[in-house]
Amino acid sequence: MSEKRAGFSRERELARLLWKKGFAVIRAPASGAKAKRVNYPDIVALRKGSIFVIEVKTRGKVKPIYIDEWKIERLLEFCRRSLGRGYIAVKYIEWNKWFFIPIELLEKTPGGNYKVSSEALEKALTIEDLVNISDGVKPLSSYISK
Amino acid sequence: MSEKRAGFSRERELARLLWKKGFAVIRAPASGAKAKRVNYPDIVALRKGSIFVIEVKTRGKVKPIYIDEWKIERLLEFCRRSLGRGYIAVKYIEWNKWFFIPIELLEKTPGGNYKVSSEALEKALTIEDLVNISDGVKPLSSYISK
Repeated sequence: MSEKRAGFSRERELARLLWKKGFAVIRAPASGAKAKRVNYPDIVALRKGSIFVIEVKTRGKVKPIYIDEWKIERLLEFCRRSLGRGYIAVKYIEWNKWFFIPIELLEKTPGGNYKVSSEALEKALTIEDLVNISDGVKPLSSYISK
Repeated sequence: MSEKRAGFSRERELARLLWKKGFAVIRAPASGAKAKRVNYPDIVALRKGSIFVIEVKTRGKVKPIYIDEWKIERLLEFCRRSLGRGYIAVKYIEWNKWFFIPIELLEKTPGGNYKVSSEALEKALTIEDLVNISDGVKPLSSYISK
């Protein structure tokens, strides 16, 4: 399977998982000739009035993730308009678990792109945290001093 | 152009229009073999925290519109989960304008499907009404007794 197709398969997997947890979920069209994705994040998940705007990444091993500047700009613009919360959703295959890194924890690299550092990954939310946020419950991590 | 392709072209047109009005917009993937749309409405538009869940219809002439029961069920389920407002967006080609009919104004037909009546069309919102709702301004129509 190509990296691109594997990416879409991950997006579908996450969309299904979020649906099972009670979110209303919409995935963007595949980026083809006809379906321009210029303004679309990978996934938008909605639950009880909360808006989660998500860019999806998959990695085999745990190591820093770099993301193109334009993708983050796209996500930020979408969040500004919707007043949604932006996340990078990462699934590390070897852990078999999704992590949601709040966009404000990304670091800008000298080259202008963005990086998910291991420190940011430690502060990542789980899918249960997103459920709690939309239930109006503070995520547990907000009570833990770091 | 086939009816299906014309439909997607209308969805794109509406998505662009909503984007120009300041909404964050996401369109569902085209319904193909891979991209199941079972749970996806045509368009989700977000603005300042408001959630608009939209099914798109186009008609050449003004006459009642009938919509399959399963499409309305899909829209209602998406609205229940997201706490969004559901609309049928109709563009009548001869008027060259979009109308947004709140889902609660649809009538159920004896056959179990749904109908946009001419009475419902008279109460339809415009795109400016959606902007006002997301600005926290009541639509003008809510002040007009009917």
